[in-house]
Amino acid sequence: MSNSLGNSYRVQIFGQSHSPQIGCVIEGVPAGIVPDMESIRSFMARRAPGGALSTARREADEPRIVAGLNDRGETCGAPLTALIENADPRSRDYDRLRDIPRPGHADYTARVKFGGHNDIRGGGQFSGRLTAPLCFAGALAMQLLRDSGVRIRARVLRVAGIEDDAVDFLRPPMDGLCDGPLPCVNADAAARMAGAIEAARASGDSVGGVVECFATGLPAGLGDPMFDGVENRLARALFGIPAVRGVEFGAGFAAADMTGSAHNDALRAAADGVAFESNRHGGALGGITSGAPIVVRVAFKPTPSIARPQRSVSLSRGEDAELVIEGRHDPCVVPRAVPAVEAAAACALLDMMLDAGLSFPT
Amino acid sequence: MSNSLGNSYRVQIFGQSHSPQIGCVIEGVPAGIVPDMESIRSFMARRAPGGALSTARREADEPRIVAGLNDRGETCGAPLTALIENADPRSRDYDRLRDIPRPGHADYTARVKFGGHNDIRGGGQFSGRLTAPLCFAGALAMQLLRDSGVRIRARVLRVAGIEDDAVDFLRPPMDGLCDGPLPCVNADAAARMAGAIEAARASGDSVGGVVECFATGLPAGLGDPMFDGVENRLARALFGIPAVRGVEFGAGFAAADMTGSAHNDALRAAADGVAFESNRHGGALGGITSGAPIVVRVAFKPTPSIARPQRSVSLSRGEDAELVIEGRHDPCVVPRAVPAVEAAAACALLDMMLDAGLSFPT
Amino acid sequence: MSNSLGNSYRVQIFGQSHSPQIGCVIEGVPAGIVPDMESIRSFMARRAPGGALSTARREADEPRIVAGLNDRGETCGAPLTALIENADPRSRDYDRLRDIPRPGHADYTARVKFGGHNDIRGGGQFSGRLTAPLCFAGALAMQLLRDSGVRIRARVLRVAGIEDDAVDFLRPPMDGLCDGPLPCVNADAAARMAGAIEAARASGDSVGGVVECFATGLPAGLGDPMFDGVENRLARALFGIPAVRGVEFGAGFAAADMTGSAHNDALRAAADGVAFESNRHGGALGGITSGAPIVVRVAFKPTPSIARPQRSVSLSRGEDAELVIEGRHDPCVVPRAVPAVEAAAACALLDMMLDAGLSFPT
Amino acid sequence: MSNSLGNSYRVQIFGQSHSPQIGCVIEGVPAGIVPDMESIRSFMARRAPGGALSTARREADEPRIVAGLNDRGETCGAPLTALIENADPRSRDYDRLRDIPRPGHADYTARVKFGGHNDIRGGGQFSGRLTAPLCFAGALAMQLLRDSGVRIRARVLRVAGIEDDAVDFLRPPMDGLCDGPLPCVNADAAARMAGAIEAARASGDSVGGVVECFATGLPAGLGDPMFDGVENRLARALFGIPAVRGVEFGAGFAAADMTGSAHNDALRAAADGVAFESNRHGGALGGITSGAPIVVRVAFKPTPSIARPQRSVSLSRGEDAELVIEGRHDPCVVPRAVPAVEAAAACALLDMMLDAGLSFPT
Repeated sequence: MSNSLGNSYRVQIFGQSHSPQIGCVIEGVPAGIVPDMESIRSFMARRAPGGALSTARREADEPRIVAGLNDRGETCGAPLTALIENADPRSRDYDRLRDIPRPGHADYTARVKFGGHNDIRGGGQFSGRLTAPLCFAGALAMQLLRDSGVRIRARVLRVAGIEDDAVDFLRPPMDGLCDGPLPCVNADAAARMAGAIEAARASGDSVGGVVECFATGLPAGLGDPMFDGVENRLARALFGIPAVRGVEFGAGFAAADMTGSAHNDALRAAADGVAFESNRHGGALGGITSGAPIVVRVAFKPTPSIARPQRSVSLSRGEDAELVIEGRHDPCVVPRAVPAVEAAAACALLDMMLDAGLSFPT
Repeated sequence: MSNSLGNSYRVQIFGQSHSPQIGCVIEGVPAGIVPDMESIRSFMARRAPGGALSTARREADEPRIVAGLNDRGETCGAPLTALIENADPRSRDYDRLRDIPRPGHADYTARVKFGGHNDIRGGGQFSGRLTAPLCFAGALAMQLLRDSGVRIRARVLRVAGIEDDAVDFLRPPMDGLCDGPLPCVNADAAARMAGAIEAARASGDSVGGVVECFATGLPAGLGDPMFDGVENRLARALFGIPAVRGVEFGAGFAAADMTGSAHNDALRAAADGVAFESNRHGGALGGITSGAPIVVRVAFKPTPSIARPQRSVSLSRGEDAELVIEGRHDPCVVPRAVPAVEAAAACALLDMMLDAGLSFPT
Repeated sequence: MSNSLGNSYRVQIFGQSHSPQIGCVIEGVPAGIVPDMESIRSFMARRAPGGALSTARREADEPRIVAGLNDRGETCGAPLTALIENADPRSRDYDRLRDIPRPGHADYTARVKFGGHNDIRGGGQFSGRLTAPLCFAGALAMQLLRDSGVRIRARVLRVAGIEDDAVDFLRPPMDGLCDGPLPCVNADAAARMAGAIEAARASGDSVGGVVECFATGLPAGLGDPMFDGVENRLARALFGIPAVRGVEFGAGFAAADMTGSAHNDALRAAADGVAFESNRHGGALGGITSGAPIVVRVAFKPTPSIARPQRSVSLSRGEDAELVIEGRHDPCVVPRAVPAVEAAAACALLDMMLDAGLSFPT
Repeated sequence: MSNSLGNSYRVQIFGQSHSPQIGCVIEGVPAGIVPDMESIRSFMARRAPGGALSTARREADEPRIVAGLNDRGETCGAPLTALIENADPRSRDYDRLRDIPRPGHADYTARVKFGGHNDIRGGGQFSGRLTAPLCFAGALAMQLLRDSGVRIRARVLRVAGIEDDAVDFLRPPMDGLCDGPLPCVNADAAARMAGAIEAARASGDSVGGVVECFATGLPAGLGDPMFDGVENRLARALFGIPAVRGVEFGAGFAAADMTGSAHNDALRAAADGVAFESNRHGGALGGITSGAPIVVRVAFKPTPSIARPQRSVSLSRGEDAELVIEGRHDPCVVPRAVPAVEAAAACALLDMMLDAGLSFPT
């Protein structure tokens, strides 16, 4: 179904921006795992609102595991359910929102799909808030992956046309990123991105950007061609994050402009078998992991909610209408998208590992 | 499972490059349809080898429906099975291929995954030949979609850095493309692309490109967020085509460099409700069709099989080895990828229509 | 996954007997439905503990919908999530239970499956308590079905060898059942069954029984052979209720002893097409509904938890051990199984209706 | 989808009684297996028509593997596809069959479901002939299971009220069954059953029966409660065989009349851990294998096609009509159902083993 992800690590996400709770049910967590709540909270805090570059909405985003643990706090083989309270939904007049769809949002398409019954409060099920339970599921997945030597880390490659430094895809910067909401190799680039985001906010506008995610330590041989390979699964998961407009692997779209002799990654003999001399293939060949780091880039559009007046339609009156969106909104989704990308990648990669029958230390 | 696609129009693909047969089983075809074999054959001919820009392998690619029809030739509600003979598999010595993995191919990853039991003849299950049954399933899907007013058409946007003209995403060139293996708006661009492909072949190299696919006539309201939306489904299907490295919708990666005020598509009142003034969103908002044309671009890497010597590894000897790939190969996968992209899109879009309970004239 | 049911009305159940919460997430509820909480509560009350024939555990079983509704209380197209508190879990020493598996329970098999990490408190995920969220999902399904003229009703056919009167499968007793925890056509039979259950309790033993469930008003043509037909789906759902040992349709096992001439149901012309002269086929032919009432019988084993000493094994000592189960237990699961059977049937039947694209008044 | 079975050993069946081909596609077969065609053919021969007790239709039932093997004849990780020719479809006038539905068949229900487009030749997709590809998939599953020490064997427990001897469910008669189409412990019972079948044929009637299937050697801990447990999966698979009306495990419906003290199976310490003193639970507790043999019984209705005149309806004239079915039909489906039951059980049990990550010698 549409809010579920995965074969062996199956994540069912639920909730809307203003429903009493949001959360997830996860089937397939190996039994005997003690969820590391501290690392889960710490990971989710990266996504939570409240930072300098994000909205004024305050949510503790404290996940509560209400099912799936035994009396010793270990996963017990039953589905794991985590709830997060929606503590700060502001009441307001939604009739206007129902009438005039916001450009770039799902207001109009959801209205058609659900016959006007969609939840329009705060974006309903289309809200970026739904990435909170995704981050819970991803943080738990990362805990399991970490215990198997797999690491996942994303950086901000580009915001408002400002680009971070290029890196070697064979040795991604898992530890060399600057702190803060815009992890970059080049802290100066991060500072300039932050400035561009602030400038966009100041001018009542918004900006987009690109997140680049790496995964190291995966064994070769994961992924199931032709429709459940590395790229298919990651793409399906990543396009579940709001505002994603493109996904590419390794050299990505740039590969389209290369020759084969320039794009192919040569192999060479290595101590433990085979190594690649470069990683333009982004860690997957034929949909199967090669043992080289996974490299995936995700394009985010600029936040559609902007302060400037926009042209739209009054559906009740059947005529053009000017829309002014009130309230404060993130002028750029990228800072909070970074952990969401890591989480989606973690869920998809753990799923492939469990599909392959790889077991985890408990 | 990995070779299956779709919820309501479910396509199970099978076969390898040199297996006796390749084919597909399709569940969910509405009963009472008479497959239009002429249009299916005509569509599949676009993908078949033999053209000026493709390999020397000759395959009739004649699909034979061996199950799923009643005595009047109508679909009967049982799964539809189509077979295609592999008529021209050349016998050769595969031991060398088993030993030295080809850069850019799945030789090494499949060997690890399947413990050396993978079928290496002609690329096995990773061969572009598997797009033949995908094209069968897509051609049948297009027949049904056509009867509902939906059209799907792809063009070659770029090959070897040569780009076709830009188009208006609200009025895609469904009928204004030049004939031949490189459908373009600008026939001159197509000619230059063909020249670049020939030049790559002549120099023992290969080139990549980008295919842009449009779908018109879809009703608003299709697609199921968050993981079964328009983008998730199309991406999962499209990454099933060999050599795809990236998928983007509407403005795609370029959206990441725009401001919200420049990217948002304004709405206006129209005779039948609502219209968009532009289509940077590529026909999907929140994972749901907007009624505007679907626009998706797919990046193809250069063919990895090139005539030039390449560095690889002899797995048996555990040492570096030079590889020279024999035989003739397509110097560019793009010409034959065009119908494959259309087919994958057709399967995914029909699936969403059937999911939504839309019925078809029989 | 294992705790999910359905294609179009997909129910994900979670929780254990003593987890903080139990509940379910339902995808596929049509948008615009206002859940009838009164009828849902009333239905769930039939399952809740506290009756004369059941355990002493008291649970309000108040379902709380925490996601999936819009601000007008209508389903909004997002997954519907309902939570039920586990209000009365008694703390106790579980070490003994971990050591000596109870005969007839999943203590031993779950221990093996989950490496000793299974939740043994109150039976964990194997507890009959998990039928509470199933009943929530079933009650909501029944609300939708009722609006389409479909009714579902189960009776107790047999307990401890005491049998209710036979009925006409073409005209099931949807309204003619006696009140109370043992709905029967013959109130006297119900009274004798109640007596047998009390007698079992008094003697420290337990009894089993058979529940017979009817569904009327279903259109002909639902169900998807060969593995998603009426019988496959109902059986899969019904075997999810703890203690079920057999499922049969129409004449069931008795059909095996009949001749074809005695078993076949003749057809005759009717005002609206075709009618059956009898209903030994139980409303399904070839896995597809015939329009005649669905008739399915479900066999429940006697409650395995009995007061009498039983022979088991101390796993820690590796030697035989006598087990005396403390606490009070239902001497017969049948009274509380009746709504669970109706609920499972409702979920499966609604799923088939939604699969067939039948829509519901909102 | 409806013609698919399994999570990890996924069997997609296709074909109709008179389609050019029938067959199956199997995903999830471990790579490196050489299908034992002799044992597969031998198994399928038990199901094939032509025996003394079956129809006159002659089919070689020679399965041909057309995809999924490498050049050494090993499974290669790609989907395995097997085809069986429909060599002997008799042409005849089907208009009459379209008009007057046969009692006990799917003629009427399929007509409604598929709007009259269903394939009525020889029963179409509802034909027992579809058990041929099921038997192929089951025979391959049995090959894998056998290599892991798992055996599956069914016997005829009852035909026309004639019953075979009772057996000890802890030590099922895997090797002690008589030869021939009616495997029984008691060869005399088998002879009397054969006589009853012949008598039914002679009188233009038919009889039903019960098949009892055993599986030994399964490890404890397989199966996923609550909806993917041993019973759920076996029931879903078994109800896919035409004419099945009931499925029960261990003591089955008889358990409903027992007390807990009589039904519970005591445990005792054993060399390798734990053993059961009896096996009324049929090898599954809480949906999970216990290590005791699986015991499942399947009720088959009498063949609906009988020579005697029957009351039905002329759909074209809208009035009652007498139907006389021409041609020869099996007077009892049980003999050919025995391998189909074993095959369905093998597919479901192997699926659980692969789900659990158990690997197989290659």
